[in-house]
Amino acid sequence: MNAMKAEILSIGTELLVGSILNTNAQFLSQRLAENALDVYYQTTVGDNVPRIVSALEAGARRADILITSGGLGPTADDVTVEAVAQFTGQRLVYHKPTHDYIVGLLKQRSLAMNKLIDKQCYIPANAFVLKNKKGTAPGLLIRLSFNENKWLLVLPGPPREMQPMFEEALPILLKKAKIPKETFEVRSVRISGMVESQVAQKTTDLLNLKPPITVGIYAKPGQVELKIMSKHKNKLSAQAAADKIEKQIRKRLGVRVYGINEENLSSVIGKLLLKKKSTVSLAESCTGGLVSHLLTETPGSSHYFVGSVVAYSNEVKIKNLGVSKETLKKYGAVSTQTAIEMARGIQERFKTDFGIGITGIAGPIGGSKKKPVGLVCMAIVSKNESIAKTHQFFGTRSEVKSRAANKALDNFRLFLLNQKKLMN
Amino acid sequence: MNAMKAEILSIGTELLVGSILNTNAQFLSQRLAENALDVYYQTTVGDNVPRIVSALEAGARRADILITSGGLGPTADDVTVEAVAQFTGQRLVYHKPTHDYIVGLLKQRSLAMNKLIDKQCYIPANAFVLKNKKGTAPGLLIRLSFNENKWLLVLPGPPREMQPMFEEALPILLKKAKIPKETFEVRSVRISGMVESQVAQKTTDLLNLKPPITVGIYAKPGQVELKIMSKHKNKLSAQAAADKIEKQIRKRLGVRVYGINEENLSSVIGKLLLKKKSTVSLAESCTGGLVSHLLTETPGSSHYFVGSVVAYSNEVKIKNLGVSKETLKKYGAVSTQTAIEMARGIQERFKTDFGIGITGIAGPIGGSKKKPVGLVCMAIVSKNESIAKTHQFFGTRSEVKSRAANKALDNFRLFLLNQKKLMN
Repeated sequence: MNAMKAEILSIGTELLVGSILNTNAQFLSQRLAENALDVYYQTTVGDNVPRIVSALEAGARRADILITSGGLGPTADDVTVEAVAQFTGQRLVYHKPTHDYIVGLLKQRSLAMNKLIDKQCYIPANAFVLKNKKGTAPGLLIRLSFNENKWLLVLPGPPREMQPMFEEALPILLKKAKIPKETFEVRSVRISGMVESQVAQKTTDLLNLKPPITVGIYAKPGQVELKIMSKHKNKLSAQAAADKIEKQIRKRLGVRVYGINEENLSSVIGKLLLKKKSTVSLAESCTGGLVSHLLTETPGSSHYFVGSVVAYSNEVKIKNLGVSKETLKKYGAVSTQTAIEMARGIQERFKTDFGIGITGIAGPIGGSKKKPVGLVCMAIVSKNESIAKTHQFFGTRSEVKSRAANKALDNFRLFLLNQKKLMN
Repeated sequence: MNAMKAEILSIGTELLVGSILNTNAQFLSQRLAENALDVYYQTTVGDNVPRIVSALEAGARRADILITSGGLGPTADDVTVEAVAQFTGQRLVYHKPTHDYIVGLLKQRSLAMNKLIDKQCYIPANAFVLKNKKGTAPGLLIRLSFNENKWLLVLPGPPREMQPMFEEALPILLKKAKIPKETFEVRSVRISGMVESQVAQKTTDLLNLKPPITVGIYAKPGQVELKIMSKHKNKLSAQAAADKIEKQIRKRLGVRVYGINEENLSSVIGKLLLKKKSTVSLAESCTGGLVSHLLTETPGSSHYFVGSVVAYSNEVKIKNLGVSKETLKKYGAVSTQTAIEMARGIQERFKTDFGIGITGIAGPIGGSKKKPVGLVCMAIVSKNESIAKTHQFFGTRSEVKSRAANKALDNFRLFLLNQKKLMN
């Protein structure tokens, strides 16, 4: 059976001038995907009756379910209901239950009904009305034609009104439209230390899989994500199919796979340190505290993160980390030697199992021919081991900091996994 | 004269399944509005040739300028160029300059050309090629028909590649399409320490202004932005009109206005410290290094930022900052007393003019009835002054950290401006 097709129509001139970000389209797309409804088009139009009608007409030609958000408010520029009435060929009738509900809601907020709000009680004659628990504007569910299984769901624009209304409307819609229940297992496999094309080369066959199981590839700075989407009539089978693909990916990419779904480098390191009952401290120069910030984003990080010294000046490196003047003079502040002494200094002073030292040139100035902007040395030490690497990063000051921080976290992860050969 | 109409086509299956938020549509809409180009439709389609072609056809019927983003990457699911070639009826030809440029770019990153990346060198025969300064995929500018003034601009999907390429392409497009030059002076007035409704109450008349000069209000966590848009045939007149409004805003909001356009709290503090020839150091607990990270985002921060201690454990607070055991016992780690001793400790140890101490409960656990999650104490000291404040922040661990960091920066700014009464 072909999956039902859904389309999302976002309505609001503020979206077309970029005043607000369209988070509704993302929310609705996610929820529809999770319910095995395919979305092929998202459209955004302004608060304009002819353009809303034309977008609804285009959508109805292509899809089985149309979902609109926005344009249900009380002001003159909210015209979605008028456009829906015109599109469906229905007249607007006054809906007394909605009137009573709004009056009660306003009373709770010590407000009175007025002419503008009263406009929201006019509803297309054939619409099933959805109560708005978070605001005054009702939503609508409309069967578009009695010869076809086509539906229109009309939702308010503010996310805090739209989202709960969608959740209530969805089971009603699925039932009315007799949509067979299918489950989606969506799983993100997160990869570090490889670029998109390297991952793609190793997973070409998986990327070409066809439904009911597909794999997509997405690149973000410093990481790549493989997204498995597995569709099945029951949850367990969908999961089992996804497990199989995940296993394949792990087999091919090894420890380059650092986590699944919401995991990130910080939370993965947290788990490893908790398991080892180990602690860590950092001496950061060019990253300016960013690595410490990322590590402490993970709840419970106080169990293994003891603290850091951000050492921007040489004096702090000498006095508060114990870097030797000779090392600074001989090799410079940006050198593997200094990085190791920073890491050792913090590990000993803060009495932790591991110490990390990072020193480099974030830019945009301060570089030289021998040591250009973006050059970063980082060291990791344990009680009886130390390892240092030199990297060249590119981009703005902010990008160099961010890339260096992510690399430091990934290398620390590999160090903890005893995969030092993979550190690069 | 009617304004030219533009349309935005976002391409990417990841948008249709809700994996990522469509920030590109917002960015492009904003920039087009700022250049007096009307946007009536935004459309999103997946990485699918027939659907991209059909969306391009629909767009070309309605608008003068089509702008696509996404689908230019090296993998098999990136099919935008193929769709554009089909839509424009052009064959793809190998573009040697793009090949050479990509090879050079890869070399810098110690990567080699491969077959997947090489795909990006095939370009529709009639396209003007836009170099990608932040990645490998080139952009395209294409005149759709020699009888009509219709244009297609093809941009990459990642915002960090798309945005600079758009900024370079825009003047070329405006010139080629002979779009009459009107100048827009767009100026963002940045405000901290007030919420949106407070700012709106003080600027109602300005927010109701009509073109050629308008003021918009935008709220982001911890700050409000008033955006002045002033349109005129010449730059100087547009600027003069914007100056007048900016002056009005500053008169009404005083030092709550912390900056203009690209300025942020970190860069503003940097300027103040450079002017005073002063230095600062930080002792961070709950913010975990975030304030140091933000301060060091500003180029040249090494001139005034000496370093920090991130003190997660009490032992570090005692040993490395000199907080007294008695203070910790009597008032607790989260107290104004501890914050002041942290600030004083770092200021003395790192020999800086100012010291900042921050201690609190980031959550999600660790709170109590008396000291709930989100409680943060912060202190600022100079050689002969000290001031401490207690705040209650709300939200996730990450939000509490971020709000506390922004408040610390804003309070430090007010301290440096000798506006301590406004610190809250």
